[in-house]
Amino acid sequence: MTERKRKAIGVFDSGVGGLTVAGELMNRLAGEDIVYLADSARVPYGTKSPDTVLRFTRESLDFLKGRNVKLIVIACNTASSVALPKLVCEEEIPLVGVLLPGARAAAKASRNGKIAVIGTPATIRSRAYETALHEIDQYLDVRSHPCPLFVSLAEEGWLDDDVTRMVAHRYLDPLAAFGADTMVLGCTHYPLLKGVISETMGSGVTLVDSAKEAAAEVEGVLEREGLARSRSEGGKFECFVTDNPYLFREVGERFLGRPINKVEHVSF
Amino acid sequence: MTERKRKAIGVFDSGVGGLTVAGELMNRLAGEDIVYLADSARVPYGTKSPDTVLRFTRESLDFLKGRNVKLIVIACNTASSVALPKLVCEEEIPLVGVLLPGARAAAKASRNGKIAVIGTPATIRSRAYETALHEIDQYLDVRSHPCPLFVSLAEEGWLDDDVTRMVAHRYLDPLAAFGADTMVLGCTHYPLLKGVISETMGSGVTLVDSAKEAAAEVEGVLEREGLARSRSEGGKFECFVTDNPYLFREVGERFLGRPINKVEHVSF
Repeated sequence: MTERKRKAIGVFDSGVGGLTVAGELMNRLAGEDIVYLADSARVPYGTKSPDTVLRFTRESLDFLKGRNVKLIVIACNTASSVALPKLVCEEEIPLVGVLLPGARAAAKASRNGKIAVIGTPATIRSRAYETALHEIDQYLDVRSHPCPLFVSLAEEGWLDDDVTRMVAHRYLDPLAAFGADTMVLGCTHYPLLKGVISETMGSGVTLVDSAKEAAAEVEGVLEREGLARSRSEGGKFECFVTDNPYLFREVGERFLGRPINKVEHVSF
Repeated sequence: MTERKRKAIGVFDSGVGGLTVAGELMNRLAGEDIVYLADSARVPYGTKSPDTVLRFTRESLDFLKGRNVKLIVIACNTASSVALPKLVCEEEIPLVGVLLPGARAAAKASRNGKIAVIGTPATIRSRAYETALHEIDQYLDVRSHPCPLFVSLAEEGWLDDDVTRMVAHRYLDPLAAFGADTMVLGCTHYPLLKGVISETMGSGVTLVDSAKEAAAEVEGVLEREGLARSRSEGGKFECFVTDNPYLFREVGERFLGRPINKVEHVSF
């Protein structure tokens, strides 16, 4: 058991977004080693079909299992929505997605029972957040909308910008009119646009960042299964990508919120 | 020789954009069969590193060669800029990119010798258009700018739209101030935004669509090599994609400008 405890936590995302989850894990679980994998050669997943997302996610998880991890966080909302339900039945290792923690936090935060969900086209098409929210409470009123341009805007770094404001109004005005008091940011890129999203939805709307909730869920699972390490132990961070490591590192540090020593290239 | 003549033309792009090249080929060379391949599972290429683009392009060309084609058009600007120079030395089959035809047309169109180039981050970083233009005429003054959001805007279908106008001003105002009289649309998605781009640059600026120029180049190569078929012969169109064929067909028909009978899935 001690042997298993000493293993690292695997974190998977199609790109840099999942580093926000890795950052939260570092804050909460300073004793844990983390192995991060970004499938940056094939990013984004959010515009691809469920079959392709499942195939790519399965290949990525195989890589992480080869690094001998004790738990894997699927930090990508698209993979959590589309691939996780199938992979949970195939894998013996505990898998934590960002979807259920996000849905739970949203259901808890809402006072009027109206919840808005935004995400990639694949996440929204899957209706996975609706399903999860209705399993928690069948009376919740859920409205969702895909926001594909938000990813490019976040990557351009146009965070406090009139173009982003205009796009946000286009996507979010119908959700604001619906009267939601809680919104799930169902894509790891979206928290970067929190300022503009909050301005557009109004300050009365609680924004739920699934990355934070997922980190809390990981802590719970590790404690329940007796797999948590003490804070004084590890803390190593390894980072692997399927495209160029140098390009990734530059943007990655912005998402992680701290320097990244080394990024290694892998291909599979 | 007749045997070789009867073979199809292969057209490769990372996504749907290259269908504009296929459409031009259908207009010009009605007797030719065309096999189209979109690497839609790994699209886009324009944000990826040269090594990854080269690897993906090589794999895609291997598939097309397996379909027994007589010539391959690399209809993707990123692959033409980054991978083609290397692949030309490896392959025996004639390869036509979109870059050289576009550069030649731009050099011919410009009266004041000032040429602007827009494209994906990978295309612009490669400086391939600059190099090609300076090989044609070393006195040309070339200014270039990456326009990553244009791809998402074209895919959203926001073609005549205030958001697109605002983004166009952000990207293109410096190029307009530079005084170019000719602009290369160095990405197969950009011709969809021709209206807004022309409005932003001013009506005095000639927009060069590399897809059209590449089709003319293919016609020239086939005639020079005695590989052209007569207009009364073939005309079959086959379409392969690495992601979901149904999603592709819907958007694809908009780019091709005519119906697509069947799209088949392949994986490699």
